[in-house]
Amino acid sequence: MYGDGVFRTMRMRDGRVNCWLGQYRKLEADCQALDIPCPARSTLEQEIDLLARSTPDCVVKIVVSRGEGGRGYGVPDSVSPNRVVLTAPLPIYPENFRRDGVSLHVCELRLCHQPRLAGIKHLNRLENVLARMEWSDPDTPEGLMLDAEGWVVEGTMANIFMRQGNTLLTPDLSACGVAGLQRERILQFAPQCDLVPEVSNFSLPMLLQAEEVFLCNSVIGVWPVRQIGAHAIPLGAIAAQMQGLLESEIV
Amino acid sequence: MYGDGVFRTMRMRDGRVNCWLGQYRKLEADCQALDIPCPARSTLEQEIDLLARSTPDCVVKIVVSRGEGGRGYGVPDSVSPNRVVLTAPLPIYPENFRRDGVSLHVCELRLCHQPRLAGIKHLNRLENVLARMEWSDPDTPEGLMLDAEGWVVEGTMANIFMRQGNTLLTPDLSACGVAGLQRERILQFAPQCDLVPEVSNFSLPMLLQAEEVFLCNSVIGVWPVRQIGAHAIPLGAIAAQMQGLLESEIV
Repeated sequence: MYGDGVFRTMRMRDGRVNCWLGQYRKLEADCQALDIPCPARSTLEQEIDLLARSTPDCVVKIVVSRGEGGRGYGVPDSVSPNRVVLTAPLPIYPENFRRDGVSLHVCELRLCHQPRLAGIKHLNRLENVLARMEWSDPDTPEGLMLDAEGWVVEGTMANIFMRQGNTLLTPDLSACGVAGLQRERILQFAPQCDLVPEVSNFSLPMLLQAEEVFLCNSVIGVWPVRQIGAHAIPLGAIAAQMQGLLESEIV
Repeated sequence: MYGDGVFRTMRMRDGRVNCWLGQYRKLEADCQALDIPCPARSTLEQEIDLLARSTPDCVVKIVVSRGEGGRGYGVPDSVSPNRVVLTAPLPIYPENFRRDGVSLHVCELRLCHQPRLAGIKHLNRLENVLARMEWSDPDTPEGLMLDAEGWVVEGTMANIFMRQGNTLLTPDLSACGVAGLQRERILQFAPQCDLVPEVSNFSLPMLLQAEEVFLCNSVIGVWPVRQIGAHAIPLGAIAAQMQGLLESEIV
């Protein structure tokens, strides 16, 4: 009723969830941040295995909510969380998104600063829904979200990186945004691409001066960005390298 | 899945929802703010009438969500909203809350500024849930919420008023908070109590200097506030007057 829960969206390939251990660790951390007991890993694994039999290649979503409470905001003393494990078809995107890059809409909606919820993949996602309603052109698969102060935060469904020289930057998400697993992995892979990873804020004008920009999440992998609003962004070599790295080392 | 909807919580007495027309008007406005088609008034009235037969004295809650979409944040071209109309028992509070006033916990959680959602009674209520988890003393039925800048906003479930001289103040809710129907009515009733209503922000130190403080919502009516954190607040005559006015003029 109140979006009081967390979720993960994952890629299942040949019956196995990519980066499952990392995904479970994030789920655990997010549950802990909201004081929701996290389902046991083995329970979720059994349920995923069951789904894998009928749909080995799909998107898997896990939703954990605090569970049944009363009408108001009070949480009962003893509450048992609800979990939903479901599959969805892989979204069909044109192949050139991944190869030639995508165009981003710059969302008017600005994300608010709520340090208590920042980074968590929780279910209070009205901001994302409203931002996603701002455009409908199918050639523009993602929107760029800024915070109230004008700092770049993320896409509506993906994290964002920019390269400037040999520095690979992604926004600090301690005030808002969702800290995705692939973002974390890309930061770890940066040195393998001779890049220095850096978590720090940048503005839209700074982003438009980037030498390369790309998006990431567990379903799309990595998409280069070739345009932001009306501004062309140069394509670079890192996006393709990260595509390969994300796919090669799946734990 | 994403808290993408709105709700109303109302008092049913003798089979009639208090201030139904006002409640429906708020529901309509909130739906419109999120671009969700609002169910017809007559449909809701039929459903409420049906519930009234078995439980004429209760809390009625209406929830309208955007309806079934896909996995992601995109809204399908054609979507038909879901509605839930349910009843809940009247909460049982000690009679002295209403007569002698209540004590408020000062919540550590600060509300974030999201002008796009401010005022709306939407379903992204994790802030309220987390704030409500901060205390459990049953003698403290409500928590006071401030925003990130330290301005007083509301209670976790009620709006707040303070009186200073002949001015009756309630916080401006254009950046955060829920603009409840009883708040609106109290602002309208102020002149009948020889008070000048004013919507403007005040800080916690200003609130602690108030000559009278009270809370309102459609379930509790009006509760005087006798204590905020460790600070005693003087009781005044306006809370009782407003209790009477809210109950006497129910449209």
